[in-house]
Amino acid sequence: MPAADPAAGSRRRVSRRSLLTAGGLTALAGAGTAAAVALRDEDGASGPGTAPFHGPQQAGILTPRQQYVRLAAFDFGARTDRGRAAALLLRWTSAAEHLVRGEAVPAGLEPPGSRAADTGALAGTAPARLTLTFGLGPAFFDRTGLTAARPAALTPLPAFGEDRLDAARSDGDLLVQIGADDPFVAAHALRVLQRLARGEAGLRWTMAGFTAADGRRNLMGQVDGTNNPDPAKALVAAPDAPAWLAGGSYVVIRRIRMLLDHWDTLPPAHREQALGRRAADGAPLTGGGERTPVDLAATRPDGVPVIATNAHVRLAAPASNDGAAMVRRSWSYHDGLRADGTPDAGLLFLAWQPDPRTGFIPVQRRLSQGDALSRYLVHETSALFAVPGGVRPGGYVAQALMEG
Amino acid sequence: MPAADPAAGSRRRVSRRSLLTAGGLTALAGAGTAAAVALRDEDGASGPGTAPFHGPQQAGILTPRQQYVRLAAFDFGARTDRGRAAALLLRWTSAAEHLVRGEAVPAGLEPPGSRAADTGALAGTAPARLTLTFGLGPAFFDRTGLTAARPAALTPLPAFGEDRLDAARSDGDLLVQIGADDPFVAAHALRVLQRLARGEAGLRWTMAGFTAADGRRNLMGQVDGTNNPDPAKALVAAPDAPAWLAGGSYVVIRRIRMLLDHWDTLPPAHREQALGRRAADGAPLTGGGERTPVDLAATRPDGVPVIATNAHVRLAAPASNDGAAMVRRSWSYHDGLRADGTPDAGLLFLAWQPDPRTGFIPVQRRLSQGDALSRYLVHETSALFAVPGGVRPGGYVAQALMEG
Repeated sequence: MPAADPAAGSRRRVSRRSLLTAGGLTALAGAGTAAAVALRDEDGASGPGTAPFHGPQQAGILTPRQQYVRLAAFDFGARTDRGRAAALLLRWTSAAEHLVRGEAVPAGLEPPGSRAADTGALAGTAPARLTLTFGLGPAFFDRTGLTAARPAALTPLPAFGEDRLDAARSDGDLLVQIGADDPFVAAHALRVLQRLARGEAGLRWTMAGFTAADGRRNLMGQVDGTNNPDPAKALVAAPDAPAWLAGGSYVVIRRIRMLLDHWDTLPPAHREQALGRRAADGAPLTGGGERTPVDLAATRPDGVPVIATNAHVRLAAPASNDGAAMVRRSWSYHDGLRADGTPDAGLLFLAWQPDPRTGFIPVQRRLSQGDALSRYLVHETSALFAVPGGVRPGGYVAQALMEG
Repeated sequence: MPAADPAAGSRRRVSRRSLLTAGGLTALAGAGTAAAVALRDEDGASGPGTAPFHGPQQAGILTPRQQYVRLAAFDFGARTDRGRAAALLLRWTSAAEHLVRGEAVPAGLEPPGSRAADTGALAGTAPARLTLTFGLGPAFFDRTGLTAARPAALTPLPAFGEDRLDAARSDGDLLVQIGADDPFVAAHALRVLQRLARGEAGLRWTMAGFTAADGRRNLMGQVDGTNNPDPAKALVAAPDAPAWLAGGSYVVIRRIRMLLDHWDTLPPAHREQALGRRAADGAPLTGGGERTPVDLAATRPDGVPVIATNAHVRLAAPASNDGAAMVRRSWSYHDGLRADGTPDAGLLFLAWQPDPRTGFIPVQRRLSQGDALSRYLVHETSALFAVPGGVRPGGYVAQALMEG
């Protein structure tokens, strides 16, 4: 039908441009679905190492974990309203479409009044499976006048007994998870998003993580991510959610510092008992290989459970938490040196689920009541974001919410 | 000759072990070259992606730049003397021999009295061309009673006009440059070295950097490292130096923050003039390709030099500095957010040369007097280290100095 109306293309283009430049709710008036049409309607060809941006889910949830991540939370400035927030999400969406293809970001996407432009830093560099995944914090809804639309599941997380949280590095109005197999590509993408947000939202905190190229061990030496559920189990099913959240997810982010100087001095058997798995291959202490189910009922001849009553795998198991499960997608971090001389290093733990009230929250509540591993861990930051569903070509992140 | 004496092997092994455990200069008495015999004399087979540790130079100088770097400076504690310092260098050398082969570090290398042990974090992970390159700061010599052996070239760098140095992140008694194509491997190696130094030397500062997998651009978008001299030109020639330094080098480390928020807003032509090269391909503004020599004499029809009088390439050129040249081996860094909201990002600039007095110092002196690029750069840290020559199987870093 649009093809039958030769004027529709230019009309739509004007609508999209007005949203990018006017930056106010008025720009949305009458735009309706017209704003959903991108400056480029085609989902450009994907080169080698390109993770498609468009799809039923945002990229970066089901995408096999990249080697690097930059997490970044932004807070809105004083002048935010629904229209300005929508304009930012549209700018970011458009930029992401270019960035994941390894393209420079067009000057037209810069904020109104900005003289900034892409420096071409990515020229000659492959996109390295770059993904940009956007999330909305609980405060997003109040800041944009959408309080009534906030899902009940998007409530700030409860306090857990052993938390030692740094508020300045927790929470946030907006999240971007930037994943890539190339740290330069990820760092450049953060630069671009920060620049495009200028005048609208400022970076609240950012963290960088990594994995080994060919391993899944964390800095404690443990094989990590064993028995992760099918990632699709993290997605919100359409009937249970508003349209903007269908195919989306909830992500909990915890920066978990490891007390490595202590951990390194423990007898190896003690380390294995705290986790409940063998260090060498990640197999449960009840035998088999890494993927063998843990036998929580197994006892030694003297009647003592093989998996200790406070072992991490026992307390975290779905069987111990009414079936609660979450998809873990974590990276190690090492930010150098703390003031006390110990390593500022650990795990950027990301838990994805369709509802944190039946995912992270019950599991963490249980872990905080005596998990043997938690003696060597400090939860330093915490955040929860709703991650809207995927973006179709011509749309933008959370469009159905912003224009609903 | 040693082979003719069946007792020599065990005698030497005892000497090496006593150096590892006694940790005092007394342990060196009479050890002589015997201490040069490693617990394992063979330079173990190199697997794929392994950068050999032994050789006429330390690895990490001529090694093609890895994608990831961790720089770490250590300071000795109060009790240091020559023997204890030698013991630390031996522990680190032995650990490096294992780490570059992807092996766990044996428990026997842990410091006296330590209960720590390798956690097996690298099991299943390839070494990823891991290199560990050790350097000695000017203060190393006073701390170890070797003041008379300090080379004249190893004098703290002079102040440069525009420096804004953070003393806590500058200098240091000892340097380790950890390069690898895998960030997990590099982070783990830092952990091990820090653990092995416990009780002897503490981490003073550490910094992490990266490059694109397939590019040489920095975060300003410039092609970096053009016209680098042959890396072998960075090496100290044997006749000019004490034995421990022959085949070694001097490295200057500068953490150079980029004022990216400003840089991004400059007109592209202005950016190119500040550097003297084209953004698109790194070719000099006087034409040709990236590797075409810069024509500093070229003028426009109106007589104005094509390469501005304050262009970075003009002021940094050997022709402008009595032939002074250095081998640059730099990485980008992005540590997130500064308190003022600007990116804490830039370049970990490493300059290698056989003598800083005819390398970095004259070039930087000239750059600090009006380089157009320096308006967008802040030199935040500075350090100079002498990097001893390579290690033969059975030897350890700086052995000829420590036992000279």
